[in-house]
Amino acid sequence: MMNVQLSIGSMLERAEKYFPKKEIVSRTQKKIHRLTYEEIGRRTRQLAHALKELGVAKGERVGTFAWNHHRHLEAYFAIPGINAVLHTINIRLSAEHLTYIINHAEDKVLLIDEDLLPLIEKIKDDIPTVKAFIIMGDGALPNTSLSPIYSYEELLQGKDDFFSFEPVSDENDPAGLCYTSATTGNPKGVLYTHRSTVLHSMALGLADSMAVSEKDRAMPVVPMFHVNAWGLPFASTWFGTTQVFPGPQFNPKVLAELIEKEKVTLTAGVPTIWLGLLKELEETSYDISSLRAVVCGGSAAPDFLIEAFEEKYDVPFLHAYGMTETSPLVTVSSLKSYQQSIPPSEKLEIRAKQGIVVPGLEVKVVNDKGEVKRDGEDMGELLIRGPWIADKYYKDERSKEAFHNGWLHTGDVATMDEEGFIKLVDRTKDLIKSGGEWISSVDLENALMAHDAIFEAAVVAIPHPKWQERPLACVVLKNPDEKITKEELYDFLKARFANWMLPDDILFMEEIPKTSVGKFLKRALRDQLKDYYQ
Amino acid sequence: MMNVQLSIGSMLERAEKYFPKKEIVSRTQKKIHRLTYEEIGRRTRQLAHALKELGVAKGERVGTFAWNHHRHLEAYFAIPGINAVLHTINIRLSAEHLTYIINHAEDKVLLIDEDLLPLIEKIKDDIPTVKAFIIMGDGALPNTSLSPIYSYEELLQGKDDFFSFEPVSDENDPAGLCYTSATTGNPKGVLYTHRSTVLHSMALGLADSMAVSEKDRAMPVVPMFHVNAWGLPFASTWFGTTQVFPGPQFNPKVLAELIEKEKVTLTAGVPTIWLGLLKELEETSYDISSLRAVVCGGSAAPDFLIEAFEEKYDVPFLHAYGMTETSPLVTVSSLKSYQQSIPPSEKLEIRAKQGIVVPGLEVKVVNDKGEVKRDGEDMGELLIRGPWIADKYYKDERSKEAFHNGWLHTGDVATMDEEGFIKLVDRTKDLIKSGGEWISSVDLENALMAHDAIFEAAVVAIPHPKWQERPLACVVLKNPDEKITKEELYDFLKARFANWMLPDDILFMEEIPKTSVGKFLKRALRDQLKDYYQ
Repeated sequence: MMNVQLSIGSMLERAEKYFPKKEIVSRTQKKIHRLTYEEIGRRTRQLAHALKELGVAKGERVGTFAWNHHRHLEAYFAIPGINAVLHTINIRLSAEHLTYIINHAEDKVLLIDEDLLPLIEKIKDDIPTVKAFIIMGDGALPNTSLSPIYSYEELLQGKDDFFSFEPVSDENDPAGLCYTSATTGNPKGVLYTHRSTVLHSMALGLADSMAVSEKDRAMPVVPMFHVNAWGLPFASTWFGTTQVFPGPQFNPKVLAELIEKEKVTLTAGVPTIWLGLLKELEETSYDISSLRAVVCGGSAAPDFLIEAFEEKYDVPFLHAYGMTETSPLVTVSSLKSYQQSIPPSEKLEIRAKQGIVVPGLEVKVVNDKGEVKRDGEDMGELLIRGPWIADKYYKDERSKEAFHNGWLHTGDVATMDEEGFIKLVDRTKDLIKSGGEWISSVDLENALMAHDAIFEAAVVAIPHPKWQERPLACVVLKNPDEKITKEELYDFLKARFANWMLPDDILFMEEIPKTSVGKFLKRALRDQLKDYYQ
Repeated sequence: MMNVQLSIGSMLERAEKYFPKKEIVSRTQKKIHRLTYEEIGRRTRQLAHALKELGVAKGERVGTFAWNHHRHLEAYFAIPGINAVLHTINIRLSAEHLTYIINHAEDKVLLIDEDLLPLIEKIKDDIPTVKAFIIMGDGALPNTSLSPIYSYEELLQGKDDFFSFEPVSDENDPAGLCYTSATTGNPKGVLYTHRSTVLHSMALGLADSMAVSEKDRAMPVVPMFHVNAWGLPFASTWFGTTQVFPGPQFNPKVLAELIEKEKVTLTAGVPTIWLGLLKELEETSYDISSLRAVVCGGSAAPDFLIEAFEEKYDVPFLHAYGMTETSPLVTVSSLKSYQQSIPPSEKLEIRAKQGIVVPGLEVKVVNDKGEVKRDGEDMGELLIRGPWIADKYYKDERSKEAFHNGWLHTGDVATMDEEGFIKLVDRTKDLIKSGGEWISSVDLENALMAHDAIFEAAVVAIPHPKWQERPLACVVLKNPDEKITKEELYDFLKARFANWMLPDDILFMEEIPKTSVGKFLKRALRDQLKDYYQ
């Protein structure tokens, strides 16, 4: 067989050759842009020229600090296209972590959204590797203390729009870099390769996973700085899919309008995004019937969320699982052919699981007795291996904690049922160990969030003098003025949980602290509440 | 990223772990077997033990000489599972070619269907590399002059059904071998690897290609000895698809019954198979509404065939293209999203093309002026490259004819239209060069076959003293007693072709000679008719 190396550049080339007229819809600060793949292709090649002229060499890192929009998409292909490494930087990191990762990655050039400039200006004196700042905006260059600065659009102007992507001599060469937060300490980097990116894109196109297709109009809400928007921009480009980018500072209203107006068929994001959208849909009416799938990952989706989309809006809700270390797609929860005829409540129970491993990867769930029983009850840590799973953190001593014996140890506690469906029970760190028994914080949260009055709920373990740990629930009401008592919530929970599993207290909060990618920041809650029994 | 090598064994493992209850329906000489993937998995591992005990070592070839059935499927995984090479042998080859390829491949063991024994018995003294003959049948061992012989079922009995597939240290290691007929001389071998097989299987699962899915009930009619039944058994197993194998000596009636009874959703074969099925459907009524796609490849499908399936039976017809050298999937013809609203006749015209290259491969159409204009008119040779395209023939001096400059030169003449759809016009060898102009034999054939009275038509070039070559048509009537004159057929053609393009004669025949895989054997026709103008 031919020794043809998998390469990211070839994915854009397919769109340029076979789908030049298909559209990219891109919301930026000023307006909604519409570009064809032909234009995106030309601009990408101009950007490649510009980066080469700025001196970016093979293997060097180019950082992006940006929302989801067409210029970011161009960077997705131009940077690997010159054999450099696309380092997508999380815009929600602290100044300290931002400084750390830009230095750790040794970014040579940064591409920055205009509205995000202040975040980089703050740390400009501490990131000496960066030799050029390219500002991605619709208008003239803003005033900034950064130097040297370039306007993205001016850089492209006049550049040759013919550029042959550099040949990829080894598909295992690095092409992307993304940092993930650690429980303590600095973020950890995951290096993607041409091979991992292409294979992962193929997995997204499989009929039994997300079935990304030319016929789709895909809107990644999950940020392009968060595991490459789960790989959707790569796969969508390869397959000639119309892409809709929600751009900066979007809110549920913006999303609902884009879905309605652009007839979005496929969208992807974390549960908090869909909770927000659901609230918007309840308040204002939108036509979201174009959606064939709402993909939800990042953390477990509560049952009622799945139910609301499927039953109230007749929109299939696709629960998936992955992490930065896994490119990210690992599992998708769709019913098997012979499960189509089971009662709706059982279907929902299956759909609420994280699903079955996609073709190409292997998973196992392991505790101290070995692989768990496939009964949906026995718990263990989820282990993963495969060609788009990281084998280490980028230049990081902490690699050995997660990677050993050829498997990624996810730190996620899961069960596997008879049918092979994985269900995440908790993070190893979030499980509550009460008097020798385990209590799942995720189960309690989902139960609480199923209550009509509750918007969000987080349950954490707090140290207890007798039981070692006990659960404490923190809830945010949909309507802060609603009069609901703890007793009512306890009555609601008692129907589903044994008494000893109930939280020791339910605290009403205005908001639950979240991580930079919208997951509950349980560490902060635990810190805040650790003296509850002192 | 993890250094995980793609491997064929892992595909079956996924079916065993996640779809153990799904079924394989297998028609053999005696009956219809029903086995689960769990049983197939156990039997495959028993077969792996048996082959190891027979002394098959890494890299050695094991031949299969068999129809499409579950035992053949087990061999598909057991042979690569011990790091040996699955050599699927075409049962329709001449004794001379059979002897050649068994010796050329140096097959160590042969797995043979009981009803095909006589073909091997005839050459038994000329294939010294073969050390064991395993007979695949439902009953006791038949009398045979082959030695030593083993019964497939007896070999499996009592073997441990636990066997860890041998680790694949390099995904580029050989896993399969298939010979393809040459215009002259001996067949040429194509060696598949673990990598090419896994990547090709992934391509079959893409939503925009065949979308093979767990929800399908797939029936490969294309033989498992013909480019691995187009890769369907591998992909279907990986995705947990129900498989229906039509077994030995099937006919259109058997196929129609299986489609109806087993609710087949996806089937694949060459045009002659679908012509036969169509005739059967016209004579007897069957419910074929379960079909979501009839995949057709191997040679160009005439328009009326596509039309009949789509309009008369409301079954989507999926035109595809590939060859032994390409694993085989290269293109699939499905309408782009923005082509859905064009008039039906234009749709048919597009569907009758071979389609757009699948993700992962590259194609170009080249003549002596370079790449052809993308106007659907300009003709050139189709060139292909990618990770599941061969780069040479197995130990064969003739490799350089087809493989040079990093591309496979297919010998197929094609056009490419503005949308990137490939249309095969002819084989380079079958194009008719008349007075400096080219006439497409395929266009004439399709036009003739669109006539109600005609079952099959083949058009070939014959030497002409003045025009160099002229077309001659050979036709087979649906009903031999039908009274139809040449003049009527000429009138029928004149509506579509310029006078100089019309065949010089139309010959009525009882049948058209075919290749071992059901394609028109034009070489034989040309030989037979070469003296027409002498």
